[in-house]
Amino acid sequence: MESSTCADIRSVRETVRPTTIIQSDKLSQLTGAEIIIATETFQITGSFKFRAAYNLVANVPETTLITASSGNFGQAFACAAAMLGKQAIVVMPANSAKVKIDATKSYGARVDLVDTSKKSRAERLAEIALENPGCRVCSAYDDPLVIEGNASLGRELAELNRPFDIVVVPVGGGGLSSGVITGLRKSNRHDIHVIGAEPLMANDAAQSLRAGYVVKLDDEPQTIADGARTVSLGKHNWEVLKDGLTDIVEVPEDRIEEALRLYFNLAHLKVEPTGALTLAAVLTKPDLFVGKKVVCVVSGGNVDLDTYLKVLTRDARGN
Amino acid sequence: MESSTCADIRSVRETVRPTTIIQSDKLSQLTGAEIIIATETFQITGSFKFRAAYNLVANVPETTLITASSGNFGQAFACAAAMLGKQAIVVMPANSAKVKIDATKSYGARVDLVDTSKKSRAERLAEIALENPGCRVCSAYDDPLVIEGNASLGRELAELNRPFDIVVVPVGGGGLSSGVITGLRKSNRHDIHVIGAEPLMANDAAQSLRAGYVVKLDDEPQTIADGARTVSLGKHNWEVLKDGLTDIVEVPEDRIEEALRLYFNLAHLKVEPTGALTLAAVLTKPDLFVGKKVVCVVSGGNVDLDTYLKVLTRDARGN
Repeated sequence: MESSTCADIRSVRETVRPTTIIQSDKLSQLTGAEIIIATETFQITGSFKFRAAYNLVANVPETTLITASSGNFGQAFACAAAMLGKQAIVVMPANSAKVKIDATKSYGARVDLVDTSKKSRAERLAEIALENPGCRVCSAYDDPLVIEGNASLGRELAELNRPFDIVVVPVGGGGLSSGVITGLRKSNRHDIHVIGAEPLMANDAAQSLRAGYVVKLDDEPQTIADGARTVSLGKHNWEVLKDGLTDIVEVPEDRIEEALRLYFNLAHLKVEPTGALTLAAVLTKPDLFVGKKVVCVVSGGNVDLDTYLKVLTRDARGN
Repeated sequence: MESSTCADIRSVRETVRPTTIIQSDKLSQLTGAEIIIATETFQITGSFKFRAAYNLVANVPETTLITASSGNFGQAFACAAAMLGKQAIVVMPANSAKVKIDATKSYGARVDLVDTSKKSRAERLAEIALENPGCRVCSAYDDPLVIEGNASLGRELAELNRPFDIVVVPVGGGGLSSGVITGLRKSNRHDIHVIGAEPLMANDAAQSLRAGYVVKLDDEPQTIADGARTVSLGKHNWEVLKDGLTDIVEVPEDRIEEALRLYFNLAHLKVEPTGALTLAAVLTKPDLFVGKKVVCVVSGGNVDLDTYLKVLTRDARGN
């Protein structure tokens, strides 16, 4: 099993684009930490989700695959399915941004729009599953194949030919963070600390770590970091995170926005709000990072132009 | 001499950051060419100019160095001088953007502001040179050391482990384009076509190639691509370019703006207007590129927020 797992990860690594490493002297000067950016903005479909989606789609026997996603996973899933000759069905809320619906369709997926005021996405997912016997319903984070796919990023970081002390990873459902921890462990890099970065207003993971069990929020929190709006960690992710994270930083919304602006103005990098979480964590709890060599993982670059401009110009106009 | 030149270039290559290679499926689909972006936005000081500045500052005996630049070269020059323990003096127009003055000062350079309505930058440069006996006055493009520094990018491209047919390079004074040609030639990659990208309203290089001699414009053309506002090619650059360029594309202003938006929206890349010239050239003369593997060199990412937002939102608002 271990050897087959390794073979699968290699196959993902042959397919995905290596993460892009960017040094930023200006961000380092600003934070007092040596900031090394590992950005997935230039990954296939513009986010790390392709790592997970490809590994999942490639390693299940089913040829019809269903998921619910209005964001990065839907696009990555649709793209991976197209590359591997499988049929993807993506359930999205009917009021999703047209650009996101179009992007998912552009990869050849069937998009199923659900009026979420009348029916939940989960209900609609179940209906479609019943209509498609033999299909597989796929989670964007709570699946060992997702963790394994994202572990490819941990392995890449483990093999970087520059030393670092800490890697900061955004935490939503826990797919990326558990993947990075798994990849580092498989590469025997137990010396590297993994610190989670979670929106304060969606701090179910921080609450879970304090409680010692998975805490579930009542409602989907409307943080600007839309990739971290999950109400709870996945159970497979929790198994890795509960003793794999050195710490977790709860990031206020204004810090997320500040980090997005700093990436643009000081590092020439366009990031999605969820991607700004890790630098925002460094700004929020500087004592954890000062004097350290810190890899900030940027999850992706897919963001509505209007949202992006609103955040970017709040700074320019001083309000 | 040849061996010393090679040693110098290696020394630049040990110091500069390798260019960042980004594949863009969406830009490839849009243009019908396979677009491979080689971006210098993440280079030290945010543009390719550091390659030239470092090589120049490192290889002249003088310890006080003077240049006139309100843009990328001034910052790169100041940074290189600081790294190498030399004194840089940068002459800038008194009405330069404060951020640019501050950025140049932040590297420890002495900034000399000249009221260009009363005295030209060249006059002021001459005055300072006379006040500093033994100093060296440095050109941002018309110097073999500049060409040699920029040749480090040509060498990197020659060594890419992916095949390509064409490299498109922005043309201003000719420092980058002559450098890339020189680097490719020294790596024996005579098979690769180098195509220049020049603003139509600053088309002195295109005119020069047609005339067979260096054509000089009467006034500094106010193209949005401010890195290409030079009135003529340098004489050292012309010697390389006159038979080193396969072709040159004269790019209208609206294409430059369109390319800047496409980089942001489809490739998650923030580029300065001059950096958008090469993709703009592909959009302007598609027949030269369709079906080919094309490296688009992006010169840098240093752009005023206001200018950037103005161009970016022209698209969103449809006007």
